[in-house]
Amino acid sequence: MDIKSEFIFFIRSLQIQICDVMESIDGKAIFKQDVWQSQEGGGGLTNVIANGSVFEKGGVNTSVVHGILPKMLQKKTNVEYGQFMACGLSLVLHPLNPFVPTVHANFRYFELYDQAGDLKDSWFGGGIDLTPYYLEESDGSYFHRTLKEACDPFGAQLYPMYKENCDRYFVNSHRCDEARGIGGIFYDYQRPDYLRKPENLFAFSKACANAFLKAYIPLLIKHKDTPFTEEHRRWQAHRRGRYVEFNLIHDKGTLFGIQTGGRTDSILISLPPIARWDYDFHPDPGSPEEQLMQWLKPRDWINV
Amino acid sequence: MDIKSEFIFFIRSLQIQICDVMESIDGKAIFKQDVWQSQEGGGGLTNVIANGSVFEKGGVNTSVVHGILPKMLQKKTNVEYGQFMACGLSLVLHPLNPFVPTVHANFRYFELYDQAGDLKDSWFGGGIDLTPYYLEESDGSYFHRTLKEACDPFGAQLYPMYKENCDRYFVNSHRCDEARGIGGIFYDYQRPDYLRKPENLFAFSKACANAFLKAYIPLLIKHKDTPFTEEHRRWQAHRRGRYVEFNLIHDKGTLFGIQTGGRTDSILISLPPIARWDYDFHPDPGSPEEQLMQWLKPRDWINV
Repeated sequence: MDIKSEFIFFIRSLQIQICDVMESIDGKAIFKQDVWQSQEGGGGLTNVIANGSVFEKGGVNTSVVHGILPKMLQKKTNVEYGQFMACGLSLVLHPLNPFVPTVHANFRYFELYDQAGDLKDSWFGGGIDLTPYYLEESDGSYFHRTLKEACDPFGAQLYPMYKENCDRYFVNSHRCDEARGIGGIFYDYQRPDYLRKPENLFAFSKACANAFLKAYIPLLIKHKDTPFTEEHRRWQAHRRGRYVEFNLIHDKGTLFGIQTGGRTDSILISLPPIARWDYDFHPDPGSPEEQLMQWLKPRDWINV
Repeated sequence: MDIKSEFIFFIRSLQIQICDVMESIDGKAIFKQDVWQSQEGGGGLTNVIANGSVFEKGGVNTSVVHGILPKMLQKKTNVEYGQFMACGLSLVLHPLNPFVPTVHANFRYFELYDQAGDLKDSWFGGGIDLTPYYLEESDGSYFHRTLKEACDPFGAQLYPMYKENCDRYFVNSHRCDEARGIGGIFYDYQRPDYLRKPENLFAFSKACANAFLKAYIPLLIKHKDTPFTEEHRRWQAHRRGRYVEFNLIHDKGTLFGIQTGGRTDSILISLPPIARWDYDFHPDPGSPEEQLMQWLKPRDWINV
């Protein structure tokens, strides 16, 4: 199999695995499947869960799209009038319980061709990040340590580098650089010569995929039955407003998807089920909500 | 007084008038005032109403900001390294009752200076548009006819032109060109030579301001006590999700405000109190919700 086919096989398998695990944890809701095709070429499989006992809303999508490279990316990649192929898995899970963090992950592979159809460039990208509403410090540390353990066998420099990428990326610059959550890892433009062999790149993406399940599931199990009040839900909806702001104003994946004729309902499945905007709202000093705010900035989560 | 001072006087008076009227209609909540100043120069007065008997959330803001012209606008206006001054009133009212439409209006004046500080250009802009969740056709028609009557004394060509501007602007292009609401009027780059004299431009902005109150208040009074259910509220929250998408992805005013160092909480006061995102949701055929969807496209509201 060529890399492209192998990657598509990998993300489809991963999608099935993740959905199976999440359904068994939820115990009530199951994923609804939507197959879609775009006029521009390509399509995908959108798996949606909603109104579960654990998941208020979630999407685990795979897609393979191709088409003319948007002008913005032509300039960036120095390829004129090129074609692209992008395939990937993308997931966002919004649990009902405010004590369980929202999680986002994606794993993607990109190929770029010139006008003659010859492959000019290709790269892997991916990432995993956590958006808590309430957080125990040890949970944040466990999450980051699990990602670090996945990266370390491929080079000790990777976790710090990809952690910093993630901190730099998931930021609401219009909100005084408040982070969307406590970060994680984020990598992009991993070319086949970067970690030497393509097999290593695959192995890295697979290690990350396994780390996603290992890092998130314990937090989910631990907090899914924690009692909560309407006030906790209100804070969750307030923070979800910030999630919406990041995704619609800053997220390159969302804007790329919309610009390249992706399916809007599948792209915006990342948006939370409910969000609030209250004017100039600030949590009380000393409250768990204010504690969270102090953690929404780049922070060493390994040595805490 | 110079035009700038006169306009600032006008918008501040208008702000007081609108807040007084809305408070008396609400009968419960009053506007909270926030004075703010930005480091870059300028400031404003943010008037916020929340949790009222009629208004779930609303903001009526005036601001006067100045600074270095953002690069994006330097190119557009052919002025290099210029300074700008922008002053205006901007309001959004989100009523609690789903049978009362959300309304947005703004009136603004802009001056552009070259490096030597000489005035190079100036213009007026403004607009009024309506975002209903449920709508009686006669109400939509009344709203548009009132705006037309305000424009007509200044030229019969104005309403059709500004109505079309509005239809073109308030569109979620990523949602198959679904309009945010039923439109209204939207004008920009009205230069002092366009309607001949500066006094006429003032008179036009004042006519629009009066039309805003005349067009909206009867709809507010008529529907503020209409009984509603949780299902009506859910539809309202779903449609408000589209309002958020437009404001964060497409609205130039929002992006301009954020880029020029405006105060985020004052800019994003336009966002609704609560919004929902349900995957691939469509109203039932023949329902009032589906009727609304059919009206969310350019439509002649005068001859209905």
